[in-house]
Amino acid sequence: MQDIQKVDEESKFKIDQSGDVSSPLGFISGGLHTGLRKSKHDFGWIYSTTEAQAAGVYTLNRFKAAPLKLTQDSIAVNNTLQAIVVNSAIANACTGEQGIKDAQDMQSWVAQKLNIVNNNVGVASTGVIGDFLPMDKIQYGAEHVLEEQYNYGENFNKAILTTDLFPKHVAVEVDIDGQKVTIGGTAKGSGMIHPNMATMLGFITTDANIASSKLQQVLKSAVDSSFNMITVDGDCSTNDMVLFMANGQVNHNELDEKHPNWQAFVAAVKYVCNTLAKSIAKDGEGATKLVTSKVTGAENIEEARKIAKSIVSSNLVKTAIHGEDANFGRIVAAIGYASELVDPNETFVTLCGLPVVDKGVFLSFDEEEMKKRLSEDNIAISAQVGKGEGQAVAYGCDLSYDYVRINASYRT
Amino acid sequence: MQDIQKVDEESKFKIDQSGDVSSPLGFISGGLHTGLRKSKHDFGWIYSTTEAQAAGVYTLNRFKAAPLKLTQDSIAVNNTLQAIVVNSAIANACTGEQGIKDAQDMQSWVAQKLNIVNNNVGVASTGVIGDFLPMDKIQYGAEHVLEEQYNYGENFNKAILTTDLFPKHVAVEVDIDGQKVTIGGTAKGSGMIHPNMATMLGFITTDANIASSKLQQVLKSAVDSSFNMITVDGDCSTNDMVLFMANGQVNHNELDEKHPNWQAFVAAVKYVCNTLAKSIAKDGEGATKLVTSKVTGAENIEEARKIAKSIVSSNLVKTAIHGEDANFGRIVAAIGYASELVDPNETFVTLCGLPVVDKGVFLSFDEEEMKKRLSEDNIAISAQVGKGEGQAVAYGCDLSYDYVRINASYRT
Repeated sequence: MQDIQKVDEESKFKIDQSGDVSSPLGFISGGLHTGLRKSKHDFGWIYSTTEAQAAGVYTLNRFKAAPLKLTQDSIAVNNTLQAIVVNSAIANACTGEQGIKDAQDMQSWVAQKLNIVNNNVGVASTGVIGDFLPMDKIQYGAEHVLEEQYNYGENFNKAILTTDLFPKHVAVEVDIDGQKVTIGGTAKGSGMIHPNMATMLGFITTDANIASSKLQQVLKSAVDSSFNMITVDGDCSTNDMVLFMANGQVNHNELDEKHPNWQAFVAAVKYVCNTLAKSIAKDGEGATKLVTSKVTGAENIEEARKIAKSIVSSNLVKTAIHGEDANFGRIVAAIGYASELVDPNETFVTLCGLPVVDKGVFLSFDEEEMKKRLSEDNIAISAQVGKGEGQAVAYGCDLSYDYVRINASYRT
Repeated sequence: MQDIQKVDEESKFKIDQSGDVSSPLGFISGGLHTGLRKSKHDFGWIYSTTEAQAAGVYTLNRFKAAPLKLTQDSIAVNNTLQAIVVNSAIANACTGEQGIKDAQDMQSWVAQKLNIVNNNVGVASTGVIGDFLPMDKIQYGAEHVLEEQYNYGENFNKAILTTDLFPKHVAVEVDIDGQKVTIGGTAKGSGMIHPNMATMLGFITTDANIASSKLQQVLKSAVDSSFNMITVDGDCSTNDMVLFMANGQVNHNELDEKHPNWQAFVAAVKYVCNTLAKSIAKDGEGATKLVTSKVTGAENIEEARKIAKSIVSSNLVKTAIHGEDANFGRIVAAIGYASELVDPNETFVTLCGLPVVDKGVFLSFDEEEMKKRLSEDNIAISAQVGKGEGQAVAYGCDLSYDYVRINASYRT
């Protein structure tokens, strides 16, 4: 795990584990209970006191849910957002024309409440696919935006959750032109999590001064190496979305590649995305362990990503790790079916730091020591698969009885 | 399910559910306990009294196990086989040079016992990856080939199993030139089962007169629509193989496309492969239900296969079916991430015969009736995904607590 963490440790930014989307200047967030869920918060919002530059990354699923379509179209108008509204419990997916209309109503009610234009409100939903939103509850939520008295940020972080066991958020501070710029993020998992996004929502905010096009570029690259490198169950949802808002309330020179602090900013955004992504993997439905697979020596980065994801996606690897069984043969199998460019004779695998495969041939190892290491919460798998330059890291979790229990009766 | 079965029902051949690889003329099979497994049969063999034309289909996994490489090379010598030897418990994969040598010894001991040339013996292994074969036990097995006194076929059918709960075998009789030709098959599952083969072994035998090249052609096409359309857990193994032997002991005109009974022969082989494949899916590790997904209207057959497999591969669909929960949204999600060519507005889905999605929009359905149908052992999903000509059927199973239990401690 040490290698994998180094990048973060070396970075110069300050990390605030209790921070979230409301940490940057001019951002407020909140959440409340409207009755979509039995008793938990189910309606959240983010508001920037000034209009923000916006960027978004969306699911590749062909059945894109109504709120995603609306948000994508809305951002396209001016490349801006000033607010985001999110509900949990119902995904507003597979809902046709009615679903689009419902998302539009949700958007316009919040816009009205905040006195901003409709297309400056992003809309997100998560939950069961194939049900209409109960619009009376959504309307109740919209009417109460900005009206809570306490726990603003914390309420938002909770309101967007479904089967997640804990809220996922972080903020970092980075120096830009000698000024403190903050990047905050909040996300939710935790089933249907797979490369190319999943039932996951991520919201990133910053008070940095940066144009939408640059924001999009940074977001895309950060998502590729974070949210797109986690998997819980291989299912990719209709509702995945990561939105990024930058309101420019810190007065520094506009950020682009020529800015001396550009790399620091990019690294900070990646750190935020990576931290949220790992939290999602760790909180995968029924998960008891975070699994990190690092692949090196692949033909190129795409192959490396494919292989790293294949390892953490394998049900057989996941159940073996759940049972704390050093079944490295399954790791090898997962490597072997992921890519045709793997060289078995140049393949080396370690599990929890102990070498288990050398040039494609199994090694004997200290079973006692392995058993001890497999009982830890963080399981590291590393695989060299050839002599290429491609490397990647993917995150996943074990597959437990509880995953089955949770998902055997999610809808009912 | 009716549509899906029609092809079989319409066919003219006679089906023998108790038949197996020993059913065709001149084939004998057997199995015994050598100590590879605690008490169960673990060593099996098939023998043809005369040399047979041979064909094989092998895993695409880059980490191909030693016995597969040896068998492929052996068949390449003369396109023939006269015997096949199989052990369970240990896969002889990731075993390098030593593994190749062990597979060669296993082959030559059996060849010696049967007084045939080495390259006429196919070798297969299934079980744990990353362990050497205990060669004393293999040698004991080889010395006892052809020496059992009873239950020959039945013993073979059992000897090749690992976590399978029941043996999988069938035979059919088909009329060729007015003579009775028999095709028999035996297979094993039951974890690591996924498109492009898996820890599955299939053996098909026939007394038909047909050249190796034609046999290969028939086998490839039958495997593509049967063994390659099942999935248990998405993992594709290092040891998958289907072998086909034809000893020509029935005296009819050699089979090729011009033979008037060619189509009947092809249909019979497909029936055998399909029956074995469905048995494997139904006996997936921990499975309680067989899931059949039929896709129509896809752009082409490849897309149809991709989508049909995606549905039965989805952990979320599989757990919902295990819980008898009509979570059709997950079916839609699995369709949507499988193919970019799906048309949401032309997508219609039925679950257990009840329409649940119409033009991409969910439908309400009789929950009582659905609950009743979901409690059955066979679950049918059908999806029209556009207006194309592509269609395919895939088979899978539910994902249960028992899958996790079985796989959390397979190695130890």
